[in-house]
Amino acid sequence: MNPDIIKERQNATFDVEKLTYILDGGLEKTKRRREIESMVFSDPDFKEEDPNFLSRSERYDQAVRKSAQMILKLREYGIADPEEIYCYKTMVNGNHHEAMGLHFVMFLPTLYSQCDPQQSKKWLPLIIGTYAQTEMGHGTHLRGLETTATYDPATQEFVLNSPTISSIKWWPGGLGKTSNHAIVLAQLYTQGNCHGLHAFIVPIRDMNTHVPLPGIVVGDIGPKFGFNEVDNGFLKLENVRIPRENMLMKYAKVEPDGTYVKPPSAKLTYGTMVFIRSLIVGESARALSKSCTIAIRYSSVRHQSEIRPGSPEPQILDYQTQQYKLFPLLATAYAFSFVGQYMKETYHRISGDINDGDFSELPELHALSAGLKAFTTWTTNSGIEVCRMSCGGHGYSRSSALPDIYVEFTPTCTYEGENTVMMLQTARYLVKSYRQAKAGQQLSGIVSYLNEAKQHRVQPQPVAARPTVVDINDLASLVEVYKQRAAILVELAAKSIQQEMQNRKSQEDAWNNSAIDLVRASDAHCHYVVVKLFTDKLGEIGDIAIHSVLSTLALLYALHGITTNSGDFLQAGLLNVPQVHQVSARIKELLSQLRPNAVALVDAFDHHDKKLNSVLGRYDGNVYEHMFEWARRSPLNATECHAQVVLIKCFAIWSRGYYYR
Amino acid sequence: MNPDIIKERQNATFDVEKLTYILDGGLEKTKRRREIESMVFSDPDFKEEDPNFLSRSERYDQAVRKSAQMILKLREYGIADPEEIYCYKTMVNGNHHEAMGLHFVMFLPTLYSQCDPQQSKKWLPLIIGTYAQTEMGHGTHLRGLETTATYDPATQEFVLNSPTISSIKWWPGGLGKTSNHAIVLAQLYTQGNCHGLHAFIVPIRDMNTHVPLPGIVVGDIGPKFGFNEVDNGFLKLENVRIPRENMLMKYAKVEPDGTYVKPPSAKLTYGTMVFIRSLIVGESARALSKSCTIAIRYSSVRHQSEIRPGSPEPQILDYQTQQYKLFPLLATAYAFSFVGQYMKETYHRISGDINDGDFSELPELHALSAGLKAFTTWTTNSGIEVCRMSCGGHGYSRSSALPDIYVEFTPTCTYEGENTVMMLQTARYLVKSYRQAKAGQQLSGIVSYLNEAKQHRVQPQPVAARPTVVDINDLASLVEVYKQRAAILVELAAKSIQQEMQNRKSQEDAWNNSAIDLVRASDAHCHYVVVKLFTDKLGEIGDIAIHSVLSTLALLYALHGITTNSGDFLQAGLLNVPQVHQVSARIKELLSQLRPNAVALVDAFDHHDKKLNSVLGRYDGNVYEHMFEWARRSPLNATECHAQVVLIKCFAIWSRGYYYR
Repeated sequence: MNPDIIKERQNATFDVEKLTYILDGGLEKTKRRREIESMVFSDPDFKEEDPNFLSRSERYDQAVRKSAQMILKLREYGIADPEEIYCYKTMVNGNHHEAMGLHFVMFLPTLYSQCDPQQSKKWLPLIIGTYAQTEMGHGTHLRGLETTATYDPATQEFVLNSPTISSIKWWPGGLGKTSNHAIVLAQLYTQGNCHGLHAFIVPIRDMNTHVPLPGIVVGDIGPKFGFNEVDNGFLKLENVRIPRENMLMKYAKVEPDGTYVKPPSAKLTYGTMVFIRSLIVGESARALSKSCTIAIRYSSVRHQSEIRPGSPEPQILDYQTQQYKLFPLLATAYAFSFVGQYMKETYHRISGDINDGDFSELPELHALSAGLKAFTTWTTNSGIEVCRMSCGGHGYSRSSALPDIYVEFTPTCTYEGENTVMMLQTARYLVKSYRQAKAGQQLSGIVSYLNEAKQHRVQPQPVAARPTVVDINDLASLVEVYKQRAAILVELAAKSIQQEMQNRKSQEDAWNNSAIDLVRASDAHCHYVVVKLFTDKLGEIGDIAIHSVLSTLALLYALHGITTNSGDFLQAGLLNVPQVHQVSARIKELLSQLRPNAVALVDAFDHHDKKLNSVLGRYDGNVYEHMFEWARRSPLNATECHAQVVLIKCFAIWSRGYYYR
Repeated sequence: MNPDIIKERQNATFDVEKLTYILDGGLEKTKRRREIESMVFSDPDFKEEDPNFLSRSERYDQAVRKSAQMILKLREYGIADPEEIYCYKTMVNGNHHEAMGLHFVMFLPTLYSQCDPQQSKKWLPLIIGTYAQTEMGHGTHLRGLETTATYDPATQEFVLNSPTISSIKWWPGGLGKTSNHAIVLAQLYTQGNCHGLHAFIVPIRDMNTHVPLPGIVVGDIGPKFGFNEVDNGFLKLENVRIPRENMLMKYAKVEPDGTYVKPPSAKLTYGTMVFIRSLIVGESARALSKSCTIAIRYSSVRHQSEIRPGSPEPQILDYQTQQYKLFPLLATAYAFSFVGQYMKETYHRISGDINDGDFSELPELHALSAGLKAFTTWTTNSGIEVCRMSCGGHGYSRSSALPDIYVEFTPTCTYEGENTVMMLQTARYLVKSYRQAKAGQQLSGIVSYLNEAKQHRVQPQPVAARPTVVDINDLASLVEVYKQRAAILVELAAKSIQQEMQNRKSQEDAWNNSAIDLVRASDAHCHYVVVKLFTDKLGEIGDIAIHSVLSTLALLYALHGITTNSGDFLQAGLLNVPQVHQVSARIKELLSQLRPNAVALVDAFDHHDKKLNSVLGRYDGNVYEHMFEWARRSPLNATECHAQVVLIKCFAIWSRGYYYR
């Protein structure tokens, strides 16, 4: 154990173990999680080479093998609870993705929810599949999808086609090489009419030989930033005929004669999306807490430069600039962890209501999950890179794991709803709520602050003229300030739309011309929600030492958000100039205050070394020995490259005189 | 040609070709650049597979082959001017790095400048080498390096050692497999005293067999985020003996008896660093302009969602949010291009002075290049990712080239001086200048604005109490505002140090406790310099149409910087709240104003398709056909993976019931 890191742990003012329980949701959950994790560590079947040393094809092969092995083990150990399955898989997959992820997350759930009973019996045991929605030229906007499924009553079949290049299905995970079936989303045509998007089960490869079926052009879409384990694929359909029964008919139906029967409600398919977005909030917390763990542990054992001339090089973590990079992110990781917990609980609560036929809370959850998905993924995305660069050159090495964490995380900003689109969806809900409040309706739930809308003045006032009663050391007071900022920015966006419309713009152009303000309003709303949920969480914590350190983190989170958005708070007259200066000074104090607990706070996330897979983030702090050991395994070191020697010698002679100056 | 992009080009209000000349520095330069570029395109020796389809070893091999070929071609074509060499190489290397980059950038220049004549004759024609400075545990801080070179007068040799794990040389490009020699930076010990860092030529591999020599442990440090073409290496020295003559003795010397002779001036090695940092400013402009080219061209041919229900999907570039993401970055790319030009000119001017023995301007250039290196690389780094994510899912594909551009660019934030350290170096110069001004000295050059230091009040005042005479549509007025912001933040940082010292902190702790403010001051200083240089450049432009569009860009750059830092301007009382609102409104107008010229403005950068290597950024806009064609070449499509079929089938059966919900 590195003595620096021992010292760090001795300096902690709270019981790390107890904080882990809080993060896991209780002692029992921590225990069970560790049990499951140890099943993976002690399993010789999962002792493999670092994927970074393998070619892409090798990585794909290894991942498919692992997916199959995992399923067998889960059966063997009798792990069936979704959360426990998730825990087991994350452990096996480390910083990488599962080859068959989409099979579990989208394909099977869709089959389960949209097959009628007969279809379930037929399909579920047999196939391996993916969910083919996006097309080369079409993503978020479902109505834009071009793939067609035209019903032919003569044979009682659907004929599927990709009419253009841009209609080729593109991106579905597992589509390229692995799946033998796909759920294809296509525009349904029957009796001469288009009835919009519907889902069809399309066999794409022979069940025996795995060769693509006639009319099917399928393959891998090529290397990506990350996701090397996954065969994201393309699928071009050329007059592919499937039986009528292959349409998923639990809700909408096509009768044998071609008569179309509408689904009872459009809201039924809404849930999966909301669920996945809620999950992503938790993913943000995990990715950011991993990154902070690596950067903070390494910063505690890395010595560099000098504060006082002649004295030994200090720990990097003693530099104010390093603390200023990392501690606000650490606070954010905690904030997002608690928001993730809240989203999971809320989702399950509302799911129950929905099953009982009560859809009343769905719009709010939908708006919240969209905005928070965007807010947390954007913040985490840039935060991971700050962590990586805070590790100096070594952050750039794959041995740090930070490049892997980044490339595997960054697509969350785009998939399951592109972030800007998500922010605008939340904004739509906020503006609608604002207008309802203006019209005298009493709002409830998280947007109830808009009830006070009438009191806000949008016309900017000189800052000094505003009363400021904010206590920058009181979280409740800061929650209030964030709330008011959100209210003012929602009003500003709503007024911008109104003004554009007064300038004879159509409602749609007015919306587009106010989009910057709308995104800003959503962002402020989400920021308020996060500060509020973090503060609320503190109320549940009984342990005094833990309450104290988490309060410091929450305060840092809130104050740091004020500094980076100080223009908003000043513009709105919510804070005055001396207060903004006080906030800056207070942040410096909070950094020093957190310094002794920094390593303990990342320890509490309890990311096992095998899961982090980072030489810089090791629990024992013995970074350099392991970096050397890791490097020696690089495939380039397998030979001395003798073939190149002649070339290299010629090069030396030729290159004389060619250099930059 | 895609009809959308034809229409875009027809809408341009200026002559693209003329703007290209301005960016290149004149018609003749553009002509010559294109001549050199076409030598590469028409050369069958440089028609190779996309490196993204190769394994790392294959990429390295291909890169070494290319390096050797390039040298032969440069000789053949008689290209000897450093800028032309650079142009040729960039064309060959595309978005990737040269295997032997460090040989040219550091190894040869160091040999040329620090060998005495005898040494030059001996070494220059023979060897291929790298510059081994950084160690596993030591980067920016040179005094911390641990490698030792101890002189043994008995044999007239130096004995080199890596005394610890953390002293192993780590990161030098070309060290792992390619180089047969290295310039090793080591602490020189002679006659029992340490004389600090000196440079030694160390043979590391046998000149005939290329096998590592006795006492040398050398190899590749393993896969990284990018730089797959480069064998960044490690080097452990175990009692390696080299003759006395292998110390680079142009300046410092060790006599045969071990007597140490000091170098005449410490400033002599200063130049290369400043030069490389100045170059990096230009690299920022190139990376950002490439990224903008890809994102803006693709946004002009990509249709998505709807503004008006029922109408066709609009071009993404018509969304205000998309414009708000990309146009400020486009303005930044132009700003950095002009700053890059300025840095190159200034470097050459001051180099001339230095050769004439005049070092007076070196400190300013040093401070400027450090700060601007950090400022431009940080901005570009995040900007590339904004461009990538603005392309939706396809930005994540390697076919977009944006992942490559990012991973190859991002280390500039760390190497040649870590960015935070760079910002603090600039801050040191600013604070020193501020103190000189305070003491009554008249400053000249770019920091002359600190002469007015005495007039500023640091104690924050209510914003309304300040006079505000800023015209937000006048660039000269905005330059003034940026200047005052910088002056105020420098003063704030200087006062923070003073206050810390009054609280009985040592000077060093006071500095560290003010580091956040110091970085902020440097950042504001650099921001001012960029706005100023962009504005100055406009004065040189005669063409009315080009002047007009560049003025719009410069205004957008300046105003966007105000919005994102509005807190600073409000806090300092430089702008009032209504003005900040006006700035937001004006930015929206500028976005609309730039919209018709967006594609033409990226065309003017004149990045050839072969250099961009991006299916999304193609000049002809025919994105989807080429994406499909590219994907089909993916190595994973070479086989149908029959070996996996059994596994996949079992998996389907096993996995039943295991999914998330």
